Amino acid sequence: MDGTTPAQAAARPGGGDTRARLEALYAEMRPLHLFPLWEVLANLVLPAPRPAAEPHLWSYAPAREFLLRAGALISAEQAERRVLILENPGLPGTSAVTSSLYAGLQLILPGEVAPCHRHTQCALRFVMEGDGAYTALDGEKAVMRPFDLVLTPNWQWHDHGNATDRPMIWLDGLDIPTVRFFDASFAERLAGAPAHPETVAAGDTAARYGRNLRPFRGSAAERRPRDLPLFHYPYAEWRDSLAVVARHGAPDPHLGHALEFANPADGGPVMPTIAAHVRLLPAGFATRGRRATDGTVFVVVEGRGRARIGGREFALAERDTFVVPAWQELELEAEAAAELVLFGFSDRAAQEKLGLFREWRAPP
Amino acid sequence: MDGTTPAQAAARPGGGDTRARLEALYAEMRPLHLFPLWEVLANLVLPAPRPAAEPHLWSYAPAREFLLRAGALISAEQAERRVLILENPGLPGTSAVTSSLYAGLQLILPGEVAPCHRHTQCALRFVMEGDGAYTALDGEKAVMRPFDLVLTPNWQWHDHGNATDRPMIWLDGLDIPTVRFFDASFAERLAGAPAHPETVAAGDTAARYGRNLRPFRGSAAERRPRDLPLFHYPYAEWRDSLAVVARHGAPDPHLGHALEFANPADGGPVMPTIAAHVRLLPAGFATRGRRATDGTVFVVVEGRGRARIGGREFALAERDTFVVPAWQELELEAEAAAELVLFGFSDRAAQEKLGLFREWRAPP
Amino acid sequence: MDGTTPAQAAARPGGGDTRARLEALYAEMRPLHLFPLWEVLANLVLPAPRPAAEPHLWSYAPAREFLLRAGALISAEQAERRVLILENPGLPGTSAVTSSLYAGLQLILPGEVAPCHRHTQCALRFVMEGDGAYTALDGEKAVMRPFDLVLTPNWQWHDHGNATDRPMIWLDGLDIPTVRFFDASFAERLAGAPAHPETVAAGDTAARYGRNLRPFRGSAAERRPRDLPLFHYPYAEWRDSLAVVARHGAPDPHLGHALEFANPADGGPVMPTIAAHVRLLPAGFATRGRRATDGTVFVVVEGRGRARIGGREFALAERDTFVVPAWQELELEAEAAAELVLFGFSDRAAQEKLGLFREWRAPP
Amino acid sequence: MDGTTPAQAAARPGGGDTRARLEALYAEMRPLHLFPLWEVLANLVLPAPRPAAEPHLWSYAPAREFLLRAGALISAEQAERRVLILENPGLPGTSAVTSSLYAGLQLILPGEVAPCHRHTQCALRFVMEGDGAYTALDGEKAVMRPFDLVLTPNWQWHDHGNATDRPMIWLDGLDIPTVRFFDASFAERLAGAPAHPETVAAGDTAARYGRNLRPFRGSAAERRPRDLPLFHYPYAEWRDSLAVVARHGAPDPHLGHALEFANPADGGPVMPTIAAHVRLLPAGFATRGRRATDGTVFVVVEGRGRARIGGREFALAERDTFVVPAWQELELEAEAAAELVLFGFSDRAAQEKLGLFREWRAPP
Repeated sequence: MDGTTPAQAAARPGGGDTRARLEALYAEMRPLHLFPLWEVLANLVLPAPRPAAEPHLWSYAPAREFLLRAGALISAEQAERRVLILENPGLPGTSAVTSSLYAGLQLILPGEVAPCHRHTQCALRFVMEGDGAYTALDGEKAVMRPFDLVLTPNWQWHDHGNATDRPMIWLDGLDIPTVRFFDASFAERLAGAPAHPETVAAGDTAARYGRNLRPFRGSAAERRPRDLPLFHYPYAEWRDSLAVVARHGAPDPHLGHALEFANPADGGPVMPTIAAHVRLLPAGFATRGRRATDGTVFVVVEGRGRARIGGREFALAERDTFVVPAWQELELEAEAAAELVLFGFSDRAAQEKLGLFREWRAPP
Repeated sequence: MDGTTPAQAAARPGGGDTRARLEALYAEMRPLHLFPLWEVLANLVLPAPRPAAEPHLWSYAPAREFLLRAGALISAEQAERRVLILENPGLPGTSAVTSSLYAGLQLILPGEVAPCHRHTQCALRFVMEGDGAYTALDGEKAVMRPFDLVLTPNWQWHDHGNATDRPMIWLDGLDIPTVRFFDASFAERLAGAPAHPETVAAGDTAARYGRNLRPFRGSAAERRPRDLPLFHYPYAEWRDSLAVVARHGAPDPHLGHALEFANPADGGPVMPTIAAHVRLLPAGFATRGRRATDGTVFVVVEGRGRARIGGREFALAERDTFVVPAWQELELEAEAAAELVLFGFSDRAAQEKLGLFREWRAPP
Repeated sequence: MDGTTPAQAAARPGGGDTRARLEALYAEMRPLHLFPLWEVLANLVLPAPRPAAEPHLWSYAPAREFLLRAGALISAEQAERRVLILENPGLPGTSAVTSSLYAGLQLILPGEVAPCHRHTQCALRFVMEGDGAYTALDGEKAVMRPFDLVLTPNWQWHDHGNATDRPMIWLDGLDIPTVRFFDASFAERLAGAPAHPETVAAGDTAARYGRNLRPFRGSAAERRPRDLPLFHYPYAEWRDSLAVVARHGAPDPHLGHALEFANPADGGPVMPTIAAHVRLLPAGFATRGRRATDGTVFVVVEGRGRARIGGREFALAERDTFVVPAWQELELEAEAAAELVLFGFSDRAAQEKLGLFREWRAPP
Repeated sequence: MDGTTPAQAAARPGGGDTRARLEALYAEMRPLHLFPLWEVLANLVLPAPRPAAEPHLWSYAPAREFLLRAGALISAEQAERRVLILENPGLPGTSAVTSSLYAGLQLILPGEVAPCHRHTQCALRFVMEGDGAYTALDGEKAVMRPFDLVLTPNWQWHDHGNATDRPMIWLDGLDIPTVRFFDASFAERLAGAPAHPETVAAGDTAARYGRNLRPFRGSAAERRPRDLPLFHYPYAEWRDSLAVVARHGAPDPHLGHALEFANPADGGPVMPTIAAHVRLLPAGFATRGRRATDGTVFVVVEGRGRARIGGREFALAERDTFVVPAWQELELEAEAAAELVLFGFSDRAAQEKLGLFREWRAPP
């Protein structure tokens, strides 16, 4: 599967005649859309992942400044969504941050409303700054505070609004490339109104589905889709859980203290295609190397430190976003003075379902 | 399957001779442990459930008094577990409250420790009074407050202790009859010490598994059994959720507002054999009749009202326990002045897995 | 949990007064259906299973003779089902062969039809003799040949008929005690006709669902319940599979060569409450001891040998039925001259779902 | 999401200045790998699938001729795999037949062996001609006959050989683009020998797992991976099943008679990423239109007819291969004189797991 290809062999002294005849054959076949596998096999079935995506870090400050400048130039109405795409340098022209995922920084200014729509794509929002704007899902608001995680899953109506007096910025994470790859995109706007009518007070879903309770089956208390009811994971909760875990045990050598966000309907990842997690490295802690097939996007929530990704080193500061491509070795280190807290999301949910997920952990 | 049996037919005028020959045949077969189905079929395959269990209510005050008197007579050490069994009047000698479940009121006095053991039986504890005693599961304490639900699932080590200065009483709910029925009981005591060594501070499991988070798979943060990690469902949480649900929508005509306790590992019932739920009836609300195949034990948490069970009526007061046998029609009513809040548990978890659960709801 | 009970302790010299006061207390509580757990705990939570069921073997010849004699005395119409119950000697009056299962030998004479009905109980039929009678499921006939397995699952219409010129006898295996235990029995007869109208030719379900195929979802080819479509497992197929397995590898030390019948809809046991399997011991092979919590009923299909069950020994001959209670050690031995082939069924399907199944295998 | 983009709006008379300032902003951002979503959103989230793949049909005769000519020019050893890729005309340079799948025609000449390897990619083989060559999986041969389906799932060792005296040709179907998309390709050759040592006689897996049986859990009879044990679906079986279905009922208006290949371990599709099915249209039958999000590759097994795909029409003859891209309407018609039998495979297995599958059926 690697080494000299037959074509190369044929091209050697003595093989010339065969080569020419092969080329003639290929030319005849081409109009029929038939091609020789043996010329390309080595690139089709790789012995290990060779992602085109590259490690990259987007510093928050300049991205934020560009976003605000764009906000001044173009209205939300014009833009529909005022978002800067974080495009992977290795995937130019694709709007993708990893092979299967999209990431962008979205701005919503005071008084703005982003119109209600729904689509096949699954999305998550991770709040970078601002406090009090909302995402509404099927007419129920999630009031967003810094570092909250909010989901807008596949085919659920959603709109956003900012009734505060300050701009709000969050990171969007979507499976746009995945849905594009499978040619399965559907989308529609809500007819007649920019926002979905409010169906219930904020917090209703959390009360029904988010506290290890669920509506009695078949009762009037059932209100949300059974398989994906929850959509708001507040920072206040996950941060406290991380603190408890960090207090009670040793960090994992390859991960630090790490908790995944879970779908209470089945205990699995938050959406069918996307898994999300948080981790905390104690001050001064450095992880051993780890590789995994799920290219991952990270946000620095707290602290400073360094990430070494496939041999390249990046300094980490709060609100920076960085991407670790599939199967690139990642080593993380928290600076000596403070804990390093990260949020990350990847396509691990999809890969596990498809039997594709693998990881490797550096031995001690 | 109902009506006159062949045996009765044979016993009629003219059938006498056959009857005698049949009886002779039966007598011959009996020593070989062979018996005629046609004599008993009508009792083996019933057209609808005919439970031996009866509706019954145990008032809290007298039960509590007996429990305290027993507590004065016999030490916890002598009793191992100081518990009054709530035995169904229709199931004498079985220690069962429904065909498949056991219920008892347990007392633990200040300074007492109930020794650590584990068993195949799944248990739940629902706190009736007292504040601050604990159940420890695999060495992690759940500090128990009134109307908290605490689980001690199948084969997990547990012990109890009361370091407060007041007696603590809770309701035990177990699947003892089920495990006995399947001849699958195993039990053992922890060797060497009455209590399991403390493994982690209280609240650790809630932080890791109880907030729509779970430890990153394969990481050091995994500490509890994956399929049944959570064991404490505080009253403060479930009561608030019920209040939210009651505020935001109309009650279900047959149930009131009803929430089930959920296992965050899979979204299903809290234990493999037992499901538990809470419900709230608005002041003055009366449910329509409902039957279900899962015999259910209820505790009155709050309010007063009435339960009509299979045509028999019971007045409900706080901390009373009552049982609704399988397929008996239940109608509930809250008194005009206040909400009625109930906790209930049943074998619905088992019945659904075995394809046996059915319910019927009275039409309007 | 074992040893001297507190009651016994109280009854010792010096404890007499307490004992009397306890007895007085018990007498007061009894009318309120409250009982002291500490007097009975040792019998409620056993350290290991102590089944009331006993090992037993029913020789085929005498049972067959009784069945034919009963057939001569009483019509199928009178009997509805002409069946001899194999009642476990340790469970008198229960019609049960193990704690959770029922077994019986059913006779259907030439020209007879057993009327169509359905019930909550799951049933299997294992053909002992005769060739060509049928069980029809929802109007599709399974033509029964010796040692075929035919299912009539929960709530599917079924009737039987014998249009051959010879009597047909099969073993019925049902979960009657389980459904009774859970108070979940429902049953009804098909109105208007003894037999369900024929809906499709025999073999249709096998063609659609039984060859690692299934109807395209949502297409007109879907005809049977998705979760339990298959109901006929012919002897010709399972026997050949056993032969192949026996040819290709060494027998399992504790089981011999063993294959389970599988539900093609999910790869699990054949019905929600009952699992069934076959096994083959090479000539002269003896298994090591094994215990399991699922009490099991076996039929000898082929060969001779011995079963040692909980220390009691039984000689095995073709068509004999024997029962191994829960947690009794089973050792099997094939006679030197021929293979021993067994069919077995148990409540393992239920026990695994409820988290109760355990087994133990004797070390070498 | 569709219609005029903000950029276009800005570019209109009067918007010119803003446009210029935006362009300047974009130029500044570009080096930081930040891009404006509002310029591309309409292409990222489509209102309905717009696959690049095109409908296409590959006639068997010319493809076969090219394959044999290539076989004469280049040895199997040189080629590793002598395969002509069926590349979708709309996906040039990708070696893909649909967005997510690969298809090729493979030739193996008498006496040849294709060396043993394994890879993350799931593969199926559908035999076009020849009789008696084999695919070996983990050392067990599947002897291949015309129109048999043989799987070589994810990470299972496989090799091929042709010990007959005639060439063998089959269609390969793999998820190469999917694995490439997720950057999750791993592959390795078996060290030391071209073929895996024979582990068991042909047919062993079919006997253990393919007849609604499975090895007793935890016994020596377990030999294959539990989640994907079966790998050979003979034509003789599926064709007969289709015949039975066709005899017993009316064809589905949109599909004809259609059966899916099922994984006996869970009743689901044959592999985690690929679903496969067969269908039969009675002579003269024409389906109504149907769209589905899973782009599908079909092989004509029997008969003649026509396929209308997204408005383009193709004449169908035996062994032709054609592709229906995602969401293109498909109408099929069998010629008047004979049944039309098709084999098809698609990524529906993946799409359903990811929550992406949809279909539409034309109303009558």
